[in-house]
Amino acid sequence: MVKANGARSLQDLVDEKANLVEYFYNDTLAPHYRARTGLTAAFIPPEFTNWRDEQRAWRETAILFDQSHHMPELMLKGPDAFRLLEKLGINSLANFTIDRAKQFVACTPRGHVIGDCVVYRLAEEKFELISGMPVLNWVQFNAEQGGYDVTIERDDPTPYNPTGRRWFYRFQLEGPNAGLIFNAAVEGGAPEIAFFRTAKVKIGGCEVLVLRHGMAGHLGAELSGPYEDMEKVRAALLRAGEAHGLKQGGTKTYFSTIFEFGWMPYPLPGIYTGEELRDFRQWLSGNGWEANAQLGGSFVSDNIEDYYVTPWDLGYGHILKFDHDFIGREALEALPVEKRRQKVTLVWNRDDVAAIFASCLGDGPRYKAIDLPVAYYGWPQFDEVRGRDGMLVGHSCHCGYSNNEGEMLSLAMLDVQNATPGTEVTLTWGEPRGGSRKPHVERHEQFKVRAVVAPVPYASSVQKMKRAAIS
Amino acid sequence: MVKANGARSLQDLVDEKANLVEYFYNDTLAPHYRARTGLTAAFIPPEFTNWRDEQRAWRETAILFDQSHHMPELMLKGPDAFRLLEKLGINSLANFTIDRAKQFVACTPRGHVIGDCVVYRLAEEKFELISGMPVLNWVQFNAEQGGYDVTIERDDPTPYNPTGRRWFYRFQLEGPNAGLIFNAAVEGGAPEIAFFRTAKVKIGGCEVLVLRHGMAGHLGAELSGPYEDMEKVRAALLRAGEAHGLKQGGTKTYFSTIFEFGWMPYPLPGIYTGEELRDFRQWLSGNGWEANAQLGGSFVSDNIEDYYVTPWDLGYGHILKFDHDFIGREALEALPVEKRRQKVTLVWNRDDVAAIFASCLGDGPRYKAIDLPVAYYGWPQFDEVRGRDGMLVGHSCHCGYSNNEGEMLSLAMLDVQNATPGTEVTLTWGEPRGGSRKPHVERHEQFKVRAVVAPVPYASSVQKMKRAAIS
Repeated sequence: MVKANGARSLQDLVDEKANLVEYFYNDTLAPHYRARTGLTAAFIPPEFTNWRDEQRAWRETAILFDQSHHMPELMLKGPDAFRLLEKLGINSLANFTIDRAKQFVACTPRGHVIGDCVVYRLAEEKFELISGMPVLNWVQFNAEQGGYDVTIERDDPTPYNPTGRRWFYRFQLEGPNAGLIFNAAVEGGAPEIAFFRTAKVKIGGCEVLVLRHGMAGHLGAELSGPYEDMEKVRAALLRAGEAHGLKQGGTKTYFSTIFEFGWMPYPLPGIYTGEELRDFRQWLSGNGWEANAQLGGSFVSDNIEDYYVTPWDLGYGHILKFDHDFIGREALEALPVEKRRQKVTLVWNRDDVAAIFASCLGDGPRYKAIDLPVAYYGWPQFDEVRGRDGMLVGHSCHCGYSNNEGEMLSLAMLDVQNATPGTEVTLTWGEPRGGSRKPHVERHEQFKVRAVVAPVPYASSVQKMKRAAIS
Repeated sequence: MVKANGARSLQDLVDEKANLVEYFYNDTLAPHYRARTGLTAAFIPPEFTNWRDEQRAWRETAILFDQSHHMPELMLKGPDAFRLLEKLGINSLANFTIDRAKQFVACTPRGHVIGDCVVYRLAEEKFELISGMPVLNWVQFNAEQGGYDVTIERDDPTPYNPTGRRWFYRFQLEGPNAGLIFNAAVEGGAPEIAFFRTAKVKIGGCEVLVLRHGMAGHLGAELSGPYEDMEKVRAALLRAGEAHGLKQGGTKTYFSTIFEFGWMPYPLPGIYTGEELRDFRQWLSGNGWEANAQLGGSFVSDNIEDYYVTPWDLGYGHILKFDHDFIGREALEALPVEKRRQKVTLVWNRDDVAAIFASCLGDGPRYKAIDLPVAYYGWPQFDEVRGRDGMLVGHSCHCGYSNNEGEMLSLAMLDVQNATPGTEVTLTWGEPRGGSRKPHVERHEQFKVRAVVAPVPYASSVQKMKRAAIS
């Protein structure tokens, strides 16, 4: 998504727009926006069977997600590759051996998150970065401008990949039976693989790179390999899964697992302001992902910086390590503890949710519709969360429904004082003044939803796994 | 969808299955089933903006639907073409001049509906039949076997059209501003066109065949022409519509207009039984549309004939004309008046609908989910409708939600005694025993929904138009 030479840059867009929030709140269409099913439905159906039973399979048996099409990739090679990643990542890379992968998080000099991705160390000087367009762009920009001895190759999502295909297929196998299925599928028996470690195995006659993952709180695996092996590997996995209740998961289920397991994908990158990032904005396209943020929800501020987030806000406090020099370190070290928000789950009041559902009937006010299972309509979503005294205590972001929990859940960033499980808060659902101009937002009125703070991840099985597996 | 020479026939399937209903109720995936968005979403998005506002545009301003991809077509030519249609159609063709189109309905010898389609008379001996795969197959079968001097050409829906494209694009322009937009778009001014008459006009520099239609109770038009003109005509219509609130309608809106305007598409063709249709079944593919009916809903009978319908059940009494000899005439003339059911709209009780919505929250029973705006999940859907005494009084078929009316509506076929507007009935929502094996039906429990009989079409504006325009 990097601009062609001489074309309009993100800086040009920022210079043009008197009020960038106004623009992002009304007039953009996010590249990954879920309503743009035309982009992906030709590759992955919204539902293979139905999302309700697919969600159940994720929790009760096993599910196979196809991640082959929607995530950008970047291949970083060269003697300075490690040094570049260490300079950009808030993570410690001290133990980053070549049988490991990491969730990689990068920040601006002011300590605001640009984005996160998964990075595999494929060889001593070869790293594969997956997902997270803004962070991939940031890595490429620094690789090109920072005097590093590295090479960069990019592989775009299928719908706009100039080659019409990807480097790699990528499957995610999750659920309580995922381990059984993995063992049954691997030829010659599956090796022991520790959490977030990788190994090479043989499935369906093909060599497969496997990352031990475990999103649903069970043994899980991310499987990848040459694109042309995709159907052979898929078939072998489905065959192995027949006896264990394996279902394929469509995009509705895929994008709705986060409410239970707590990942907050694609925050607004904190790159739109500050002289120190002008070069980066001039390098970025004026029509790329960063130029098509799509703010939505009840929170509206004239200041785009009010949408920036820190690693703590997204729950990355445990991977932020001051054991190395990295961009943003000083700012993060200087951030007062009281400005570090906490990631929580909000459990929405059932009567209030039912009232929103019921408002589609009759002539009364129509509250913002809650689409199931993915209810958020901003990219990112920012809904106001207020405490008992009516003061703003944080923001609710990704929201949706879990058929497993029987609840509407959202992932929120709250002030520490209001982040204790059990705290009662109020979330404003819907946009002011009848709704923004975003074309996918119907005319509606706002509704105040009572909610209770809960831990994140919400799903008890996920909570248990995380405690056991991540040190 | 006609079988290749020597392949398995529909008769083979019928012979194989001890219980055809059991098979259709559990193990098929209808070719047109709405969850198969992979088939059409690459061509027409589910939502251009959002279905709620698109439904409103249909009622309040104007909407442009794209019908270019999902409907099969058949071109019938030759000296005997008219005679063939007259023999198969229950309609009178007495006034079928070449500036007209008709809704064409064909029945079996026993008087059960096979299907309906729109037929244009393009020239003295040339007819274009659009939509209705079973009726197109029936026309082709009779053309080939009945000793008629005609030729047949077929054009399949885009997703499985061997040429990858269609003969014609086809747009539908509807809504109160449709007339204004049509007039603005036609070069040199729009001609006066009577209801269901056709004319040729120029739009965007292209010659366009226009049928005056009027689905939403307003001046409306179906526009078609050579496939390569599609984007030029679309652009001209959108340009003309800018000042009049024209929106493009996605498939969600397109398939949800029927609840307001009352058409019951794709009944189960009455062709699975009877020796007199054995030849037709042997001619049909064992894997075509007729072999992939997908029965769904609370009504379950072991006898497939219980799903057959007559023209009266679908509200075609007014186009059934005994002024010509046609297949099914004797049976229809002999059908006692008390066996002619009436097509009605059912307005579902709001509290009951809200209770179904709310059942997704908490640990209580999950009733069959009502997906919005299209809630029916069978193809066709057959839900039991019972009167006050608990006796079965008919079947509720297509059901869904109208944002314009703020109601859940269904189209039902009821015994005459229970078809009076205002009659209170009970509809059983959901399938027995936790739900069928149909993969898109989630595990659920049944719920009895109170409903009130209302006229069809339900939308008051449509009612008014129909009274004024159809004689």
